[in-house]
Amino acid sequence: MVVRFVKINEQTTHTYREIKEVPLAIEEVLGKIPAIKEIAEYLQERKPREIYYIGCGSSYYVAYGAILPLIFEPSEYIGRAVPASEFIWYYSKKNEGSREVVVAFSRSGETGEIIEAVKRAKEKGAIAVGVTCTKGSTLTKITDYSIVIEKAFENSFVMTKSYVSMQLAGILLSVHLTGLRDTEKDKIIEDARNLLTTASKILDDEKRYRSIAEEDLHVEHFIFLGTTFTHPSMLEASLKFKEMTYSYAEAMHALEFRHGPIALAKRKDIVIILSMLNDDSLEALIRLYRNLVEKGFQVRTISNLYGGSQKFKDISFDVVIPWEGNRYYASLTYIIPLYLVAYYRAVLKNYNPDRPEHLVKVVKEF
Amino acid sequence: MVVRFVKINEQTTHTYREIKEVPLAIEEVLGKIPAIKEIAEYLQERKPREIYYIGCGSSYYVAYGAILPLIFEPSEYIGRAVPASEFIWYYSKKNEGSREVVVAFSRSGETGEIIEAVKRAKEKGAIAVGVTCTKGSTLTKITDYSIVIEKAFENSFVMTKSYVSMQLAGILLSVHLTGLRDTEKDKIIEDARNLLTTASKILDDEKRYRSIAEEDLHVEHFIFLGTTFTHPSMLEASLKFKEMTYSYAEAMHALEFRHGPIALAKRKDIVIILSMLNDDSLEALIRLYRNLVEKGFQVRTISNLYGGSQKFKDISFDVVIPWEGNRYYASLTYIIPLYLVAYYRAVLKNYNPDRPEHLVKVVKEF
Repeated sequence: MVVRFVKINEQTTHTYREIKEVPLAIEEVLGKIPAIKEIAEYLQERKPREIYYIGCGSSYYVAYGAILPLIFEPSEYIGRAVPASEFIWYYSKKNEGSREVVVAFSRSGETGEIIEAVKRAKEKGAIAVGVTCTKGSTLTKITDYSIVIEKAFENSFVMTKSYVSMQLAGILLSVHLTGLRDTEKDKIIEDARNLLTTASKILDDEKRYRSIAEEDLHVEHFIFLGTTFTHPSMLEASLKFKEMTYSYAEAMHALEFRHGPIALAKRKDIVIILSMLNDDSLEALIRLYRNLVEKGFQVRTISNLYGGSQKFKDISFDVVIPWEGNRYYASLTYIIPLYLVAYYRAVLKNYNPDRPEHLVKVVKEF
Repeated sequence: MVVRFVKINEQTTHTYREIKEVPLAIEEVLGKIPAIKEIAEYLQERKPREIYYIGCGSSYYVAYGAILPLIFEPSEYIGRAVPASEFIWYYSKKNEGSREVVVAFSRSGETGEIIEAVKRAKEKGAIAVGVTCTKGSTLTKITDYSIVIEKAFENSFVMTKSYVSMQLAGILLSVHLTGLRDTEKDKIIEDARNLLTTASKILDDEKRYRSIAEEDLHVEHFIFLGTTFTHPSMLEASLKFKEMTYSYAEAMHALEFRHGPIALAKRKDIVIILSMLNDDSLEALIRLYRNLVEKGFQVRTISNLYGGSQKFKDISFDVVIPWEGNRYYASLTYIIPLYLVAYYRAVLKNYNPDRPEHLVKVVKEF
């Protein structure tokens, strides 16, 4: 057997370029704000009872982050995010001739479960919107409306800029669908424009993320903790660590960690990645942080809190996110440094981040 | 330093006795069917818009399994299961003076986040129901109604019979709250009585689960896969493996595994525990099983399918669950063998399953 060693060049991979192109993809979505508003208006005319956001893998996490405004703001409709594979069974018993709306996220627009789910929903009378990065894909043909983000098209198997930009499109759609007053909606939507500067600032700091990857190179297991608004991106980060670095990684709701998984303190090969959003949950997360450190865990923190406060002087913030805008977009900004950490972890281990083994780019079979 | 070796006696631990007492706890819940119906009637009079089931750790998985009838059957109300810690932030912005119902699950009735969540919900005008195993606990005092399952009280830190019986109580409540006709509700509720025989049959087969634990003793990582109705108990099983055996364990929606985590096939220390419910999802799970085996994963299957079919002759069913009744209860039956496997894995490793290190019985702080 001949073993070939291929040195991965850090700057020439597709993944690297695609992470760096996050701002380009964000910009394209910002240009689609009027179109997204129009779609939301059509959907509202239909007066749906339930609105489902569906996806697979990273696209499911896109859906999960994008639905939040429909859960947290006043809304006439029931909003739910569900993996497409599970949504398929939702149609086995109920919802005959119902007024549902299905918003389907799929980078390729060809994912087997998404296509199956949309077809079944349409058969029962639902209305469907597709959010994809691939013009002319099957998803665009079987849905009533579609949002295509062409600049988020990726060559790498792993999703990065497509996650950020599809989730942004989904959040913007959700905000339009809430029961907020138009002025309130406009304020939240306008705030999205600040994402461009934030994303660029984070990307400029990439040396920092490379050095974090280096420091943690020996670690076997990662646990990602986040509360409501960062949780979807913690799931996404955990998936990137699995896909690109074959590391053992898991994400969970931050405070849930104390209810059982804390027993893992017996193991010493774990690093906790704790995302601390500067919102109502902060005090509880500070208590959690201290609790974890006391138990002997190594904890890395990602926060939009600039430290400096006497109250938190025992906490070292490993990554500071320059985002002070609306919490619905926070998740999009927290993921960018973690993409870079996962990316550098892969190249430092000499794995090809573009083509993880055993992974296919599009799971077309169902 | 003196290291003391304490040989754990398999049959004298609290955990062992408590798993064996699952039927006792089920029986107590069955006796409460009229009381549960009465509570459901009170709640319906209030015409809530949203019904939240909340819990922490295992009790969150209780809530997640228990809410399913409210999602899958016609219902006037929005039903959601949320970790109590996340539910706390739900009250930061919306729901002033709303008509919500909160059903809070807590074995001890003293869990910090549950108490905080119920108090906040009550302040905003919600109505609350407590489901607990502890008579006279704080939860019973701050809720409008409570369901107390005294025979599910546990001495072990880890939850077992309390999970099964609290989830059963929750499912029964949910079925009453759906928009099904009374005769349909009665049929589903009557079916719960068959759980007693099923649970006893599974417990009689415990040698089988001990031998599975023995065969997999060297394994480091476990991944639990389930579809909708078994997923809550796969999360619970994964938590037991962490708590009792300090093993690395994670649960996810079955088909989601192909969308990224499949890259872990590079690692050879993983066993997949695949729960295959004999329902609409079966065909897809058979395809998944074949796909996983082809990729080189070791797969253990738990199913209520008795094999014998030519179609599945390549699948060896490791655990067969004698349950042919309603799918809402399936989750309760699938968890019992996994409790025993986790338990035997702990004692074979000479860990004390009753008192996992770093764990406390009740997380009272918030």
